[in-house]
Amino acid sequence: MRAFLIVGNKAVTKPFNLNDLAGSAGRMDIICRCIAQSLFVSHGIRRDVEVYVLLLGSPDPPKALKIVGSEVRYMAPDERNVGGIIRKALSLDVDKDWRISSPGVYVARKNLEELLEELSRVYEIVYLREDGVDIRDVACDLKNPLFVLGDHIGLKEEDERLVLKYAKMVVSVSKLSLQADQCIVIVHYELDRC
Amino acid sequence: MRAFLIVGNKAVTKPFNLNDLAGSAGRMDIICRCIAQSLFVSHGIRRDVEVYVLLLGSPDPPKALKIVGSEVRYMAPDERNVGGIIRKALSLDVDKDWRISSPGVYVARKNLEELLEELSRVYEIVYLREDGVDIRDVACDLKNPLFVLGDHIGLKEEDERLVLKYAKMVVSVSKLSLQADQCIVIVHYELDRC
Repeated sequence: MRAFLIVGNKAVTKPFNLNDLAGSAGRMDIICRCIAQSLFVSHGIRRDVEVYVLLLGSPDPPKALKIVGSEVRYMAPDERNVGGIIRKALSLDVDKDWRISSPGVYVARKNLEELLEELSRVYEIVYLREDGVDIRDVACDLKNPLFVLGDHIGLKEEDERLVLKYAKMVVSVSKLSLQADQCIVIVHYELDRC
Repeated sequence: MRAFLIVGNKAVTKPFNLNDLAGSAGRMDIICRCIAQSLFVSHGIRRDVEVYVLLLGSPDPPKALKIVGSEVRYMAPDERNVGGIIRKALSLDVDKDWRISSPGVYVARKNLEELLEELSRVYEIVYLREDGVDIRDVACDLKNPLFVLGDHIGLKEEDERLVLKYAKMVVSVSKLSLQADQCIVIVHYELDRC
């Protein structure tokens, strides 16, 4: 299994306008691209992938999403389609337990620490940061990794401290500062080559 | 310089509905993602990149777009923003010569052969196909490459013959069948490492 956790610092926590993903939805476009790049190959979905998203924007943070590749149906890789699926999940009432919103898509009220606590029982947490060790040197040794990424803002200092507490490793995918979804593509690429 | 040429077999050749990029616009979502992944890094644009797009959908094919990284302004990486820029270009009358539509964005009436003829004078044409040589073995030897990619359909047989006539090399980025925009991310990644 492979997993990704994307932190959306501004991504809103209520249903939003699909015509303004990059604006009033709090850069939900980034979240949509990250989900799509985690799950899709050409004409198919990676069944061995889970994607987690932490939404920290107004008006009702935190909310967490879980998308399970082996269960997902009716998802297309365009931002608007993924956005519609997120919007539906954000219309549900949430509590601490995962609640299904559509096939393979779950929503809950969880903060970063609760998510990391839950996920570190299953996954080896890897933090993606530019100054980490070169992914090419470690990709094939990773067992059951979950990669943590920030959005365009990155992680806030206190969130980064938390991630580093749980992370087994800090890994870099490029010396350039890339977009989060580009990092996901590269992670898959390096792991696929193993 | 690096360049990409993306062939959109169904991508429409007139202004389209930004709310239906993946539907009635002929998978324009794919074209938008390819343009964005060619040009963007985090908080910036790759100034050494040119992107060419061949639009072959109804009602007025062929049309070609040229997007010059060093000249582009006011572009964001979300599909809707890139889609708006394409839509504006498709509202102009076209002839054989490039005509500017917005900063760094040009449109013309050119077919695949005319494009390849023009581009092969400047670039080394590389065709991306799953059975090519491993990009990792050749990335650092490429001088001024232009990578040709199909959309979700790939290239039609006669188009592929044309590309192979101009291509110096057939290169593969993965043994998996990936989406065109994912191939672009990987090409950048391998070239950035050189």
